[in-house]
Amino acid sequence: MSFTLFLIFLAACFAAGATGGLFPTGRWYAKLTKPRWVPPNWAFPVVWTTLYFLMAFAAARVAPQEGAAFAMAFWALQIALNAIWTPVFFGLHNLKAALPIMAALWLAVFATTVSHWQIDTLAGIALLPYLAWITVAGLLNLALWRLNPDTKPLKPAEL
Amino acid sequence: MSFTLFLIFLAACFAAGATGGLFPTGRWYAKLTKPRWVPPNWAFPVVWTTLYFLMAFAAARVAPQEGAAFAMAFWALQIALNAIWTPVFFGLHNLKAALPIMAALWLAVFATTVSHWQIDTLAGIALLPYLAWITVAGLLNLALWRLNPDTKPLKPAEL
Repeated sequence: MSFTLFLIFLAACFAAGATGGLFPTGRWYAKLTKPRWVPPNWAFPVVWTTLYFLMAFAAARVAPQEGAAFAMAFWALQIALNAIWTPVFFGLHNLKAALPIMAALWLAVFATTVSHWQIDTLAGIALLPYLAWITVAGLLNLALWRLNPDTKPLKPAEL
Repeated sequence: MSFTLFLIFLAACFAAGATGGLFPTGRWYAKLTKPRWVPPNWAFPVVWTTLYFLMAFAAARVAPQEGAAFAMAFWALQIALNAIWTPVFFGLHNLKAALPIMAALWLAVFATTVSHWQIDTLAGIALLPYLAWITVAGLLNLALWRLNPDTKPLKPAEL
């Protein structure tokens, strides 16, 4: 496995992850009605950092191997969808528009996991925690949307 | 070239491009002092749509070829950076934080172009308009930041 390759994929992960710092949780999120099973705030950066290392590890193992084209295409798709969810949820307060992004992200992560597994078992296994977490995040997004029907999206263009 | 592969890369592009619809220009952007050479508003979606097709075309040509690992890693990096620029600029009104993202994006697009060119000349050529446009977009971001020193970033978490 090329360490430079790992670092480039990791940079892509941290570009997506930078949205966590740029669009932080705060008063708005604190005031939302949450389901009882909501993970504590500290868990999110810890889990995401771990997942980013696993994602970069999986991609760096698979990328140099023959037949990796679809795995790479799905990996690129999931990182793009991953990057836009946080701005839509925390930047626009748009719980509803965040849902189809989550659904698309879940499918992209599923396809990424399967396509990586076909090339390299360890890479596929490394992506399972991501698939599990996206399932939780998607259910959380759904619960927050249902529990907070009066939340109005922001319109930054008009502010 | 696999058409399915092209469509997956195109989906990644349109995930990044969806930020243009989610974070539209509006009153805030209209009021910014612009340099004389600012492109008209209609040019942005036209140019970006064209570039997305070219990016997906380049990636779909290169992905199945031997030695494409670095090209794929850089492609993933550029699409992640591409996806976060619009939310930071139009969502946060943060002209300054958008600058290092633009700088990183320019480097990522440069590396993507070179690495694609090494595998496939046509793919490299297809990425040149993207590199040219990112240069213009970067200079525009810089000019807008200089011309509008009093623009205050939004803090959506506190709204």
